Amino acid sequence: MSELVGNCLVAQSGGPTAVINASVAGVITEALNHNCIEEVYGGLNGVLGILNEDFIDLASESQQQIRALRATPGAALGTCRYKLKKQQDFDRVIEVFKAHNIRYFFYCGGNDSQDTADKISKLAQAQAYELRVIGVPKTIDNDLAVTDHCPGYGSVVKYICATVRELACDNEAMGQNDLVSILEVMGRNAGWIAAGAALAKRRDHPYDPPHLIYLPEVAFSAEKFIEDVRRVLKREKYCLIVVGEGLVDKDGNYLATDSAATDAFGHAQLGGAGEYLMRLVEQNVTGAKARTAKLGIAQRAAAHCSSKTDNDEAFLAGQAAVKAAINGETDKCVILVRGDTDHYTCETGLAPLGDIANGVKKLPREWINEDGVSMNFQFFRYALPLIQGEVPVAYDNGLPLFARLEKHRIEKFLPPYET
Amino acid sequence: MSELVGNCLVAQSGGPTAVINASVAGVITEALNHNCIEEVYGGLNGVLGILNEDFIDLASESQQQIRALRATPGAALGTCRYKLKKQQDFDRVIEVFKAHNIRYFFYCGGNDSQDTADKISKLAQAQAYELRVIGVPKTIDNDLAVTDHCPGYGSVVKYICATVRELACDNEAMGQNDLVSILEVMGRNAGWIAAGAALAKRRDHPYDPPHLIYLPEVAFSAEKFIEDVRRVLKREKYCLIVVGEGLVDKDGNYLATDSAATDAFGHAQLGGAGEYLMRLVEQNVTGAKARTAKLGIAQRAAAHCSSKTDNDEAFLAGQAAVKAAINGETDKCVILVRGDTDHYTCETGLAPLGDIANGVKKLPREWINEDGVSMNFQFFRYALPLIQGEVPVAYDNGLPLFARLEKHRIEKFLPPYET
Repeated sequence: MSELVGNCLVAQSGGPTAVINASVAGVITEALNHNCIEEVYGGLNGVLGILNEDFIDLASESQQQIRALRATPGAALGTCRYKLKKQQDFDRVIEVFKAHNIRYFFYCGGNDSQDTADKISKLAQAQAYELRVIGVPKTIDNDLAVTDHCPGYGSVVKYICATVRELACDNEAMGQNDLVSILEVMGRNAGWIAAGAALAKRRDHPYDPPHLIYLPEVAFSAEKFIEDVRRVLKREKYCLIVVGEGLVDKDGNYLATDSAATDAFGHAQLGGAGEYLMRLVEQNVTGAKARTAKLGIAQRAAAHCSSKTDNDEAFLAGQAAVKAAINGETDKCVILVRGDTDHYTCETGLAPLGDIANGVKKLPREWINEDGVSMNFQFFRYALPLIQGEVPVAYDNGLPLFARLEKHRIEKFLPPYET
Repeated sequence: MSELVGNCLVAQSGGPTAVINASVAGVITEALNHNCIEEVYGGLNGVLGILNEDFIDLASESQQQIRALRATPGAALGTCRYKLKKQQDFDRVIEVFKAHNIRYFFYCGGNDSQDTADKISKLAQAQAYELRVIGVPKTIDNDLAVTDHCPGYGSVVKYICATVRELACDNEAMGQNDLVSILEVMGRNAGWIAAGAALAKRRDHPYDPPHLIYLPEVAFSAEKFIEDVRRVLKREKYCLIVVGEGLVDKDGNYLATDSAATDAFGHAQLGGAGEYLMRLVEQNVTGAKARTAKLGIAQRAAAHCSSKTDNDEAFLAGQAAVKAAINGETDKCVILVRGDTDHYTCETGLAPLGDIANGVKKLPREWINEDGVSMNFQFFRYALPLIQGEVPVAYDNGLPLFARLEKHRIEKFLPPYET
């Protein structure tokens, strides 16, 4: 393998997670170890920044800030909702890469983003422009194919479970067998996040909260829901429910959408499942009082309660992407590979970008108990290792202090581009 | 002053806070220092537990659990929505106190609860039953009279501000001058909690998020709101809004209630202010995308992100209540008294229960800027000390581990009571 000398570019795409910046920190840290990588650029706002040559010099940021980046939520480089569609867009990307001698491209994102990376990689090959493209997986939704799990998932689950435990303390105090407490969480088409709330139960305490979990994988029935709630209220002081935003009926129709808006990828913007369940309780369970909470974007940004395991793996995935590219790999995505011992271990591997781009990993139906509202030991065995450990957050004047990059701009070489 | 020998009872009332258990821990710890207090009882579920003689032996709990209680949310003794109304109820309380030789009664609660404590105290005096009653203030709402601030407030504000900072990282990443991110927080009639979100701004950064804060103290105008949002979106990448649940129009009518239910004190159960603002944005601000989050009960239970200052003061207030009673005080409520130096200091004091019961502390209008959507330096000077310091939380298997009391029951002496 010949050494490929040139600049590297890292960018972020899609919805942020609590640890996507840790992946960027991993890319930067590893890139600086290799002399064949001359400059380390960050592309601002995903593919939009590439089209517009909005690049910053990441190597000139202070080491303190890059370290702080590991515990900073959001996407420090910015992300975007823009999707490359036209051939002209893809041609522009290659033109920009050539102008800046970008030879290594690392793209942190979900399956839509890895699809984009795949197309960029193949176009570069078609144009005989030597470019190594490695994807870094991220999504709180945990629905990427091939990889055992996704950076971002462990942290959102840890935060939700901590919230469930705290809600449980509060709800139990108020409980007179009439309180129905509903927590709405994210998860568009997969119930991975809502299922994760099950980890709040202590081992061998199946009646611990959350008492009921509603997943998009299980067709929702209002009748069964009301029965479920009544059953729990007979047994427990209160009923704590976790519901995924993407609740569907037996025909696959969403039961609650609080907005008619769709994003650039055509996904409906969901929300309101919690309110929907609250109304069902109020109208059908005599004497019950229902309360809702909806963590919204806060759940994917909760760096103050993130998982060290998740954070470390996100960093590792960024490093692994650079190492793979240096080793001559391209058109691949980093994946996480779980060891097959009882003691949890995790290494990185590689998979073709196309496999990530076009697949979806569903929550296995056999990990859901027959009651449809709780998870069995197979899920616990899978998910519990992912929330282990805490990430220390720096506090200043009583509040978390997050990284702020200087963002020194790189000179543009090309005429502006109309997106 | 003669020494009063007998048992003490501590109970909790109203909505829990992140630190109300710290106050109970303070009462227990201090009570054990005084030989004239023979037994330390906890009353379960507020006044309901007193009516029903549901007492537990707090002195028999392990020291580990009492220490853990200091960082445990909810109300470990339970609380209730029951309000003593009939004379018969009050007579029963004194009867129960006599049966168990309760000579010291410590009641952690807000103004409704201190009103109850006041009535119990006065009835005991009328019956010549020697009883020392001391209230311990608590409320996330911070609206108790006389006291400088209320245990519970600093922690809810710290958690909300941490959430605002994290939301800001995420929103900024997504920002294309079109995102309106709305965080709904508690606060029935006073804007103290929503105002507290202002502390998320860095010093001398008035344009930091939250960009707009809507308080019940400022009559809401949809026209002005839409103008506010448009103005922010012209200047910033996104618009982060914090809204108190108790938004009212110029005639004092609530703009959003998501339930027709009222609690035992006749207060409307509010909610839905965030959704209401989201609709206003979607219908009136062309091209804007609105997202909501509603922390609900999670905000008052967020022990994993509580304020050490608040927690320490809650503990201190519990200790002070016992010391006051030992010193012969009764019919008083502990208050927090701020030192008048620039450097924040706080001591406890005492005020008549009646003064706490019948007053409300409003957010001073002169602490709100003329724009009606931000707070001035006087508010910062008041509130910033209250969120300082972090409380270490014990984690086990990736999640916060909270106290679980053994709750050894005390034998009942009286016939059952019909509430």
